[in-house]
Amino acid sequence: MGGSNSKDRELRERAAKVIPGGMYGHLSVALLPDDYPQFYSRAEGARLWDADGNELLDFMCAYGPNLFGYGHPEINAAFVRQMEIGDTLTGPSGLIVELAEAFTGMVTHADWAMFCKNGTDATSIAMVTARAHTRRKTIIMAKGAYHGAAPWCTPRPAGVTPEDKANQVFCNYNDIASLEAAVAAAGDDLAAIFAAPVKHDAFVDQAAPDPAYARRARELCDQTGALLVVDDVRAGLRIARDCSWSVVGVEPDLSTWGKCFANGHPISAVLGSDKARAAAASIFVTGSFWFQAAPMAAALQTLKLVRETDYLERLNALGARLRDGLAERASAAGFGFRQTGPLTMPLFLFDDDRDLRKGFFWSSAMLQRGVYVHPWHNMFLCTAMTEADIDFALNAAEDSFKALKANAASLQPIEKLAFLTA
Amino acid sequence: MGGSNSKDRELRERAAKVIPGGMYGHLSVALLPDDYPQFYSRAEGARLWDADGNELLDFMCAYGPNLFGYGHPEINAAFVRQMEIGDTLTGPSGLIVELAEAFTGMVTHADWAMFCKNGTDATSIAMVTARAHTRRKTIIMAKGAYHGAAPWCTPRPAGVTPEDKANQVFCNYNDIASLEAAVAAAGDDLAAIFAAPVKHDAFVDQAAPDPAYARRARELCDQTGALLVVDDVRAGLRIARDCSWSVVGVEPDLSTWGKCFANGHPISAVLGSDKARAAAASIFVTGSFWFQAAPMAAALQTLKLVRETDYLERLNALGARLRDGLAERASAAGFGFRQTGPLTMPLFLFDDDRDLRKGFFWSSAMLQRGVYVHPWHNMFLCTAMTEADIDFALNAAEDSFKALKANAASLQPIEKLAFLTA
Repeated sequence: MGGSNSKDRELRERAAKVIPGGMYGHLSVALLPDDYPQFYSRAEGARLWDADGNELLDFMCAYGPNLFGYGHPEINAAFVRQMEIGDTLTGPSGLIVELAEAFTGMVTHADWAMFCKNGTDATSIAMVTARAHTRRKTIIMAKGAYHGAAPWCTPRPAGVTPEDKANQVFCNYNDIASLEAAVAAAGDDLAAIFAAPVKHDAFVDQAAPDPAYARRARELCDQTGALLVVDDVRAGLRIARDCSWSVVGVEPDLSTWGKCFANGHPISAVLGSDKARAAAASIFVTGSFWFQAAPMAAALQTLKLVRETDYLERLNALGARLRDGLAERASAAGFGFRQTGPLTMPLFLFDDDRDLRKGFFWSSAMLQRGVYVHPWHNMFLCTAMTEADIDFALNAAEDSFKALKANAASLQPIEKLAFLTA
Repeated sequence: MGGSNSKDRELRERAAKVIPGGMYGHLSVALLPDDYPQFYSRAEGARLWDADGNELLDFMCAYGPNLFGYGHPEINAAFVRQMEIGDTLTGPSGLIVELAEAFTGMVTHADWAMFCKNGTDATSIAMVTARAHTRRKTIIMAKGAYHGAAPWCTPRPAGVTPEDKANQVFCNYNDIASLEAAVAAAGDDLAAIFAAPVKHDAFVDQAAPDPAYARRARELCDQTGALLVVDDVRAGLRIARDCSWSVVGVEPDLSTWGKCFANGHPISAVLGSDKARAAAASIFVTGSFWFQAAPMAAALQTLKLVRETDYLERLNALGARLRDGLAERASAAGFGFRQTGPLTMPLFLFDDDRDLRKGFFWSSAMLQRGVYVHPWHNMFLCTAMTEADIDFALNAAEDSFKALKANAASLQPIEKLAFLTA
């Protein structure tokens, strides 16, 4: 335990010269414990090796894309086979049609599909489509929800103008009164209600959707003519083999998808109902690589595994084993340890740990024992994990709870997280 | 000549059900002659096969990404090798550092790099960086220039709000007085001047940058503290082994790249000077697949070919052979035929052809003879083309000019292009 990090340090020094801040975006470790590696050398199944060769059981799964295991042989074979035939061309291959048929055949509300590259592409297309459909401007979103990193939705204000964030009204997730107030505030200008399928905000407890809230969002859209958008980029296929709000019986007009539906190959999507078809056809959105055929081949293979295997039941069983085992060990060590979110997308927070000093210590202890957990962002399970992997993580957790107990009294504030308590 | 299109028709019928408008974005053939295929089955080198197996010498090169030939063995081998090791992971591989070093080592103005997926990601990052750097909002762009398809820059108004297009002032490309007027209109709020490296707008003659215009843009940025952005997404590496404005001796603060620097594998980039480094580090931009290692391996291999081969001299020679040969044949047939843009990125327009009926007929005739040309968008050459390919295109052109001459008097207006003469 406690591996070398000399290669990671060397790469960071080189990166500091040629990459602003040394790294950027969601894979920057700037807000993670100091011993978290920044660079990786290899991956297979549920495991990652950092730049120094330290092996890690990875509960981040690339922040979602890894659903069936890193380097899945059949999915990668489908990708490479198509890449050799033709990938980024002067026109799409027939696979775009096959994939649209396969995806809309799986997702109840969907009559059509558009494919793109980033999750942010998909949420932006949904926004523009809703505005084109309604000829109105206002979008309702829940405070703290992440819908991407374009100027209209990025969570950090640097370089963003007030106009970029215009025409937005915020509500509280699962709070019907606040949603109704937001709709009232939008007046006759409501274009869309955006909803995360679960509350999966960073730094706070996760929450399942209140079915009454989801139904009310649907009703309010029906009453106003606005479109209901479920942003399934992060949670899609880890809650249902359908749009994630199918579990609460609510069908959106548009859903956005990304991350895992080609198991890490780059593709995202907007699915829509007939109601929104003409509007979607009226907008101009595109990208140099959106029509790549190889990720579509990988997506078709991934969706086949989604339809034809018990992957979701297995993921849920692994998640339950992890949740029960951690609860038992945390309790035995005397810690209030909150596990929230879907079984397949857990987030862990300690009680009485507003500045995350316990969470940081415990996560570092897990890392030293070969398990990559995240102290403040939801994690992801993948089907390459086994019961033995979960037990490995539970043993690491038991030791890490003990280490935390032994050190709890002497933990210092974490400077880089000072904003949490400011 | 004049191949079957039954498979293309069948795919279009299926697509009409599951894709809005049957296809979307820049690869839609909605504004191309009716006989242009929508779907493709295969590609190799400089050639494409449509869904019905008709072989085409492809002068679109996937709208740019194909620089070294479809399915380039060494580039694809580098991609697959890295894909097997690790691609979309919980952190970047060291390749992001290597690629930033290689790219900044090649591009004179660049001290740092950020990688992303779409060209639009790169132009959006440049805009946000410039606003963060200056704490101002106004962006100057040339009328008709394409800088992407996000709400702030998409050329079609459907679903776009006035606020999306706020803080933008327009000038005319190569018109110094209009650029100065735009800077005056921006007052003390100028964040950036965006410039295409050449005028490569659709539907009109292309134009090289006037060196005096480029120098004046640089001066105006220096005087106001705004950043100069050269949007090299489309033209990058087809004009220089450096930023494309290096040929007129002007260095921007930021340049944006995409399309071809991994020969069709999905990656784009922003390169910047030290001046803009802190601002770039202050913004939050990211994407699920931005840190994929395999496209970075492909990009490293592509940039190696850029540095170590005479690809650019060969492309220019092929382009000159094409331009001279077409000029001769057009003239012999009695047509005023304007060939504009860099030799490696030509656009063809007929004189007295405001509604493109001649261009459409001639392009269709070329297609029937196995050559894919575009009637109103700049084309692209790739190094997989040979002199024999150019001669094949010239023979097709000779026949196509003759066919046009025989039919010129009876050409009908093209309904789908009525907007050009409205």
